[in-house]
Amino acid sequence: MEKLSIIKIGGNIIEDETSLNAFLQLFSILEGKKILVHGGGKRATHIASKLGIESKMVNGRRITDAETLEVITMVYGGLVNKNVVAKLQSLNTNAIGLTGADINSIQSEKRPVKEVDFGFVGDVKKINSNGIDKLIQADFTPVFCAITHDGNGQLLNTNADTITSTIAVGMSKIYETSIYYCFELKGVLKDFNDKNSVVKVLNSKTYQELLNDHIIVDGMIPKLDNCFDALNNGVSKVHIGNTAMLTKENDNYTTITL
Amino acid sequence: MEKLSIIKIGGNIIEDETSLNAFLQLFSILEGKKILVHGGGKRATHIASKLGIESKMVNGRRITDAETLEVITMVYGGLVNKNVVAKLQSLNTNAIGLTGADINSIQSEKRPVKEVDFGFVGDVKKINSNGIDKLIQADFTPVFCAITHDGNGQLLNTNADTITSTIAVGMSKIYETSIYYCFELKGVLKDFNDKNSVVKVLNSKTYQELLNDHIIVDGMIPKLDNCFDALNNGVSKVHIGNTAMLTKENDNYTTITL
Repeated sequence: MEKLSIIKIGGNIIEDETSLNAFLQLFSILEGKKILVHGGGKRATHIASKLGIESKMVNGRRITDAETLEVITMVYGGLVNKNVVAKLQSLNTNAIGLTGADINSIQSEKRPVKEVDFGFVGDVKKINSNGIDKLIQADFTPVFCAITHDGNGQLLNTNADTITSTIAVGMSKIYETSIYYCFELKGVLKDFNDKNSVVKVLNSKTYQELLNDHIIVDGMIPKLDNCFDALNNGVSKVHIGNTAMLTKENDNYTTITL
Repeated sequence: MEKLSIIKIGGNIIEDETSLNAFLQLFSILEGKKILVHGGGKRATHIASKLGIESKMVNGRRITDAETLEVITMVYGGLVNKNVVAKLQSLNTNAIGLTGADINSIQSEKRPVKEVDFGFVGDVKKINSNGIDKLIQADFTPVFCAITHDGNGQLLNTNADTITSTIAVGMSKIYETSIYYCFELKGVLKDFNDKNSVVKVLNSKTYQELLNDHIIVDGMIPKLDNCFDALNNGVSKVHIGNTAMLTKENDNYTTITL
């Protein structure tokens, strides 16, 4: 099977022009077939507040009302996505910017209202692997923003980490798929106070040990559970680290396998 | 040669939800290969003013400064384009939303500064016909907004009529290409006070006669010159009328040939 890399970047890179340019340079020279998924960062919040739209939070989580969804569609789907595409084109990467609505690539369903009504938030239901592969086969490099659709004309705000892992799982029927989650840290840390104490290899067994020893805690747990979930569903490898993990010389990041 | 229809809609349709839905219904059942090009309308101006960005006009023409370009990228490339794509998907048309940066489909160059500095406005230089055809061959329906790029990472605001005719000319190497310009009127009128006095067929000779008789005047002249220019460069037919011209029963619109 041919290899496919799926790289996810978050707000910390998107928001800083220098970091973004440096990352896109690395991404553009990365060998083999690849897909980029980007979050949106605080730009949407900033523009929403300028437009007089209040950010509504429940239990620390953002509610996507109709007005907020419009801002997200403008900022993630337009401003961020199309500027990333234009920058990649200047680096000779033949990028194509997508939401889940384009070529029906990612269908989701509006999150059911339970205790909280999250509004126009989508939980991913189905990936159009064959459609995405048509783009890859045409030598285009898909660049996804964190927006999906429900198939009935409604766009939905969707978590970028979930989009990444679901695309990876879907594409693993066709390719040997690896995920690269780029974040602020060098990887999963043995000692949170030592930013260089990277756990280089993590598997189900060592993960359980680190959980038992309370070395992996808090927000890292759902993130890693999500990684193991992807591995259990066909993805070959998941890497976690900062953008420097895309350089060949650097091996100081976390690689997760089953 | 296989047929390809390129349909352009303007702000009057984009801005009105009912008109837009009715048009997209017609577009989705239109037979054969097709491409949609849309303008942006007054939504960008409205959002710019909400964000406190002043619309700068010189001689009645808008100047696209950096802030205005950001709004245009958000509104045309994000809000309008992605909602049109999601609506088309719900109508079983496998749409893909594009700027000229995506798959390097439309390269332009920043308009040179002469008496007026129009800012980030692009004049179309090159169409990537083969790239666009790869999407069409994959059974995707391209939906273009009025944004192009310069190949060096810069997005540029570009006239939607020009994008339409340049795509049509570029694609006419591969397809028998027709343009449909949708606007408010039923077509080119013999008598501006009689909205039903449609000139059904216009060719170089009858155009010259109508010009001599001052029946075609003002803003219609550059529009029609642009149509004849497309016809002289490989496009088969240009149609001008309201969206009802897409229905099979209606023949009350203007068809232009050489």
